Amino acid sequence: MPAGRLAFWFEFASTYSYLTAMRIGALAERRGVEVEWRPFLLGPIFADQGWHTSPFNLYPAKGRYMWRDMSRRAAALGIGFRRPEPFPQNSVLAARVALLALAAPGGADFCRAVFQAQFADGSNIADPAVLRRLLTDAGLVADLVDRAGDAACKQALRDAVDEAKALGIFGAPSFVVGQELFWGDDRLEEALSFVGT
Amino acid sequence: MPAGRLAFWFEFASTYSYLTAMRIGALAERRGVEVEWRPFLLGPIFADQGWHTSPFNLYPAKGRYMWRDMSRRAAALGIGFRRPEPFPQNSVLAARVALLALAAPGGADFCRAVFQAQFADGSNIADPAVLRRLLTDAGLVADLVDRAGDAACKQALRDAVDEAKALGIFGAPSFVVGQELFWGDDRLEEALSFVGT
Repeated sequence: MPAGRLAFWFEFASTYSYLTAMRIGALAERRGVEVEWRPFLLGPIFADQGWHTSPFNLYPAKGRYMWRDMSRRAAALGIGFRRPEPFPQNSVLAARVALLALAAPGGADFCRAVFQAQFADGSNIADPAVLRRLLTDAGLVADLVDRAGDAACKQALRDAVDEAKALGIFGAPSFVVGQELFWGDDRLEEALSFVGT
Repeated sequence: MPAGRLAFWFEFASTYSYLTAMRIGALAERRGVEVEWRPFLLGPIFADQGWHTSPFNLYPAKGRYMWRDMSRRAAALGIGFRRPEPFPQNSVLAARVALLALAAPGGADFCRAVFQAQFADGSNIADPAVLRRLLTDAGLVADLVDRAGDAACKQALRDAVDEAKALGIFGAPSFVVGQELFWGDDRLEEALSFVGT
């Protein structure tokens, strides 16, 4: 029986969500914590506060720092990192596909592969062909990309965004344990430690 | 001989600067790192990007989260924490006095005391009487509060803000080691480890 559950709210276009995606599996397993992968979109949340692109684009000094910080963190973790072009990528299709993929085993592997394709390999995750390949590699069926266009799937992603807003989420990655919210890759260890307390 | 130097850029009104101020001394000493305390103001930097108060006030979800996060972090560090009223406090006078205080031994003690008065004891650091008392407690002369009104001291604080901007600083606390910038209390350990590399 797991020690408890942690919901990992992530946005595929988010650089710091990539860091968490690549390290949460091993850390959670070591502590016996079950991770629920929750894709959502930051775009509608940012739009509510008047931002129509990433704050890293809106605020240049913050953006310059983020790229440098990401390089350092990725190097420390021993994972690849390159700046995606364009940034941020359009993550809507990837998020819809992930909602479907996560209903089956292999879903988390697919999510990790999407992050890696974008931030380590330089692929554009808005490209349906890229997503088909990643699905197949994860042992899933490529036609989830087509099913992602169904009204039910579109609505499920809208619902996820509404749920994120209701939880007070304003950035990614975020972690929810019971009623407690943690924001940022830097809070992953603290959130995992909170499980079962 | 110290292992090297780290510049600790802080804003008295900044909640996360308080966390760093209370823990940097012991951490730096253990690693043999010399800390240069650099007071500055975030107000003019925020104003450049169109913000006329703290982003924690401008973005309510982020603000609500910050107060909760600060409570958790302060409890974990075993230090007091209460929300200052008003927030953010006007830190201009405290920053000017700190520039003078840091020219003498006891300056860092005074800075820590200013943070504690504001974030643990509920004092208003814009009040000259509060600053006079904290100076005396730190073994410094209370009339630094009067000298803080001199043109030279005002200019020194403006120069510090310009230097911060030139270094790419956009938030507080920030740490500078050589040419490398680190932002946020969460990066303190990484910045200290970078000294001497």
